[in-house]
Amino acid sequence: MNTKAENQKIRLDHGSGGRLSHELTRDMILPVFGNDVLNALHDGAVFAVEKGRLAFSTDTYTVDPLFFPGGNIGDLAINGTVNDIAMCGAVPRYLSLGLIIEEGLAVADLKTILATMGRAAQKAGVMVVTGDTKVVPKGAADKLFVNTSGVGLIPAHVRIGADRARSGDQIILSGTIGDHGITIMTRREGMQFDAPFKSDSAPLNHLVESMLVYAESVHVLRDPTRGGLATALNEIAAQSAVGIRIFEDRIPVRPDVAGACELLGFDPLYLANEGKLVAFVAPDMAQDVLKTMHTFAVARNACIIGEVVPENPGRVVMETAIKGLRIVDMLTGEQLPRIC
Amino acid sequence: MNTKAENQKIRLDHGSGGRLSHELTRDMILPVFGNDVLNALHDGAVFAVEKGRLAFSTDTYTVDPLFFPGGNIGDLAINGTVNDIAMCGAVPRYLSLGLIIEEGLAVADLKTILATMGRAAQKAGVMVVTGDTKVVPKGAADKLFVNTSGVGLIPAHVRIGADRARSGDQIILSGTIGDHGITIMTRREGMQFDAPFKSDSAPLNHLVESMLVYAESVHVLRDPTRGGLATALNEIAAQSAVGIRIFEDRIPVRPDVAGACELLGFDPLYLANEGKLVAFVAPDMAQDVLKTMHTFAVARNACIIGEVVPENPGRVVMETAIKGLRIVDMLTGEQLPRIC
Repeated sequence: MNTKAENQKIRLDHGSGGRLSHELTRDMILPVFGNDVLNALHDGAVFAVEKGRLAFSTDTYTVDPLFFPGGNIGDLAINGTVNDIAMCGAVPRYLSLGLIIEEGLAVADLKTILATMGRAAQKAGVMVVTGDTKVVPKGAADKLFVNTSGVGLIPAHVRIGADRARSGDQIILSGTIGDHGITIMTRREGMQFDAPFKSDSAPLNHLVESMLVYAESVHVLRDPTRGGLATALNEIAAQSAVGIRIFEDRIPVRPDVAGACELLGFDPLYLANEGKLVAFVAPDMAQDVLKTMHTFAVARNACIIGEVVPENPGRVVMETAIKGLRIVDMLTGEQLPRIC
Repeated sequence: MNTKAENQKIRLDHGSGGRLSHELTRDMILPVFGNDVLNALHDGAVFAVEKGRLAFSTDTYTVDPLFFPGGNIGDLAINGTVNDIAMCGAVPRYLSLGLIIEEGLAVADLKTILATMGRAAQKAGVMVVTGDTKVVPKGAADKLFVNTSGVGLIPAHVRIGADRARSGDQIILSGTIGDHGITIMTRREGMQFDAPFKSDSAPLNHLVESMLVYAESVHVLRDPTRGGLATALNEIAAQSAVGIRIFEDRIPVRPDVAGACELLGFDPLYLANEGKLVAFVAPDMAQDVLKTMHTFAVARNACIIGEVVPENPGRVVMETAIKGLRIVDMLTGEQLPRIC
C-alpha cells in the first residue's frame, strides 16, 4: 500500500505563491472548506454584516503532538477560536486559517488535519473564509502550526465582560477539568495508563447561545484553556476587582485524571481545558441557567463551584476538601508547554 | 553595557498563560498598541460596526532574516495585512496579532519589532485590538513568526474583485518591482552590493482610499507580494477570464535591482513586493487615477504597464523590449522561500 500519493511530503514550493501553492489551495483547502466567500479567492474575504457589535479573536496552535486522543491540532484550532468568540457573547460566523508548515510534513497528515477542521467548522456552524499558507525549511518549525482568527456578531441585548462579575454571582463550571492537559502530557511523554485519557476539545457556541436566553443574568463567560481554571478565575477576580471563593469538593475532576495528576505532580486547577467554560451568573437565575446547560452533552456535568464574595478583591480562595482555605494564585510559568 | 535587561531572553514561561505571560502582555504589548478595545483584555476584541460589507484577511509572516534594510518582520506584518484588506477596497481598521516565539529570542529584539509594529499601525491608521502569544521550545521554530489578521469596512459604492477585469482596462503599477525580494535575498545570503537595496514595505490603504474616489472605474486591486507581479497578473487573468498584455519597457525596475537580478538569475516579475499595487482601471479614467496616485510618495513612479485584451483569455503575454512576445506564466514553485 505504499503508493506514491501516500508518501508525498510538503515541499517548500507549496508555500511559494506559485502553481504548487495554488494546487494546495485547490486540492486540499477548497474541497474541505469550500463556500462562496472562500471560493472568491481574493486577498481577503468579503461578507455582509448588520449594524452591531463584532467580536474578533485570534489564537495560534502549536500543540505537540499534532494528533492525540480526542482530536488533533485541526479541530483544536477551530474549537478554540469558536470558543473565544463565544466567550464574548457573540455568535461565531467567519474564520481565517493561517498555516505554517515545516517542509517534509506528510501530505496525508495535512489532509487528515484539514478534514478534521472541516468537520469541526461544520459542527460549530462557522465558515473558513480566508487563509494563508507558509512553508518553512526543515528544522525552522516543528511540523505544523495553525492560526485561526474569527469574527462573530454579539446580539444587542448581550453584555459579557471579565469586568462584570458582581458580589453574589454564582460560578458555574460546565464539566470536568484537566482532561485536555493530562491527555497531551501523557501522550507526549509516552506514558501508559490504564485509563484512556481523552481531550475535551469541543465547540461551546451552541451551549452559550442557549445560556444567553438569560443574557441579563450572565455576567462573565470564560473558557479555562492554557493556565486552566485557576488562571481564568484569577483574571476575572482582577478585572472585576472582586473576591472569588470556590469549593474544592464541588469541582469535577475525573478520578483517573485526578490520579494521574497526583502521580505526576500536576494540579488540575492549572491544566488546560478545550471544551469547558465558567459562567458568572446572577444568583436568582443560576439554577435556570444550569438546567439549560444540562440539556447539552458538552455540559451535562455542569455545576456551581463557587461564588463571588466581597472579601479579598482580586483574590481566588478555595475551601479545601478538609475545610481549610487555600489561596489559588496564578502560576508564574508553565506546567506544560505547547498544550494548545 | 551588558546589563541584565539587555541580555534577557524569552522563556517558555512567557507563553504559559500564567504570570509571565501577563507580564509580557502588560510590559511589551499594551504600551505599544494600547487602546480601549485591546485594554479590555477579553478573549476577543469587541467593537461596533455599521451595516455593510466587511473585508477579513489573514497572513502569516516567517521572513528570514527578521531585520532587513527598510523594515523588519513587524512592519511587514502590519503593512501586509493592511494592504490585503485595502486590496478588497476596504478601509482597514482592526488587526489581531499572533506571535509564535522561539524560546531564547532576545527580549530586546522582540521589543524592537513590537515598537516597529506600533509605528506601522499608527501610520496605517489601524488598531491592534486582540492577540495571542505562544512560546515554543528552542529548535521548534526559527526565532519568530507573526500572524496578523484584520478587518475593514468596504464603502457602499465600491466593487473590487479579481474577477472584474474587463477588456480595455488599463493596468497601473504603483512603482518599481523586486525591491523587497532582492533585499531579503541578498541580505540572507550575506552578499555585498554597491547599491544599498531596501525593502519597499509600506501601507497602501491611504493610496487606495484616494483612488476609490473613482470607485466606478477601479475594477481590480492586487498587491503583488509572494510570487510577484507575474503571479498576481496570472491570478487576475484566470479569475476574470481575460487576456493581459504588458510591455516590458514600461515596467519600472530600479537599475541596481535589475542588475542584481541578472547576476543572480532572478526574474523581477516574480520577486515579492511589499508596498506596491496593480490596479485595473476603465480606460477613460486611467489618467485621472494615475494623477491622483502620483500625489502619494508611495506611488510617485506609478505608470500604465499594459492592458486587458480579448485575446488569450487566462494568459499574460509580455511584449519584450525587443518587440518579441513572451508568455508570462505562473512559476511552479519558489524563487525564494521565507520572503514574507
